[in-house]
Amino acid sequence: MRPEFKPPAAAVAGCPLCEAAGGAFLWTGGPWRVVRVDDASFPAYYRVVSNHHVTEFSDLLAPERQQCMDLVCAIERVLLDQLRPTKINLAAFGNMVPHLHWHVLARFDWDSHFPQPIWGAKQRDVQPAATSRLGIELAELDELVIAAVAAA
Amino acid sequence: MRPEFKPPAAAVAGCPLCEAAGGAFLWTGGPWRVVRVDDASFPAYYRVVSNHHVTEFSDLLAPERQQCMDLVCAIERVLLDQLRPTKINLAAFGNMVPHLHWHVLARFDWDSHFPQPIWGAKQRDVQPAATSRLGIELAELDELVIAAVAAA
Repeated sequence: MRPEFKPPAAAVAGCPLCEAAGGAFLWTGGPWRVVRVDDASFPAYYRVVSNHHVTEFSDLLAPERQQCMDLVCAIERVLLDQLRPTKINLAAFGNMVPHLHWHVLARFDWDSHFPQPIWGAKQRDVQPAATSRLGIELAELDELVIAAVAAA
Repeated sequence: MRPEFKPPAAAVAGCPLCEAAGGAFLWTGGPWRVVRVDDASFPAYYRVVSNHHVTEFSDLLAPERQQCMDLVCAIERVLLDQLRPTKINLAAFGNMVPHLHWHVLARFDWDSHFPQPIWGAKQRDVQPAATSRLGIELAELDELVIAAVAAA
């Protein structure tokens, strides 16, 4: 059974990541949750989101940072093992939503923006759709991600 | 005295980060080095680069990952404390250069691409030049970064 999103005790009004999970809510543990982003161009795209409204990575205590990167790595390993992508991309920007969240996504040399970051210039149209090229159903990938972060 | 760049023992021919430091070489310790990227639009821009040719963050052992993020955080704290930026951006892509390196840079609401990632669409021209707006000389910022990563 999937967790339900609960706003943080010190939620910031108007913050999209205080008011909603930020994607399909897969798992939560302590100060972190894991969601999958619904993006047809980049289907293997997860986020590790802080359950508290903090802005910068270094605002956290060392054990919280370590747990965060352990979760990021656990997701990365599932994506590498299951999808054999060209590259994993990791990023924490927060320029638009300054509530700490890490992007963890699989990139392929055939995807619409490769080798640019997904925030860069589109390089090509992709047919058939990216999701159909993964070789695994997203629901199955989600279950593997949930098992990996729960064990991390 | 600044360190000199030494290629890794198992350098990969043609890899720009095996063949050169990847920026102004500031510090090295164990499997990591810290450089400053020379970018007039984003002057407060550092990289934590692996001294070994590894591709993905999860290819590393846990202590190496932790050291990496400790260095990333040490740089981030210097940028936050010295520059009061709008946001810090962290990223590890490697789509073009698949030799592990982390981007750590200060973003300002007035910079040429904010709130887009620096790899996204330019938003505005910036005059006077970004470097002159930091309120600190880059050489001084470099020294503070070196002291912080050496102590991390």
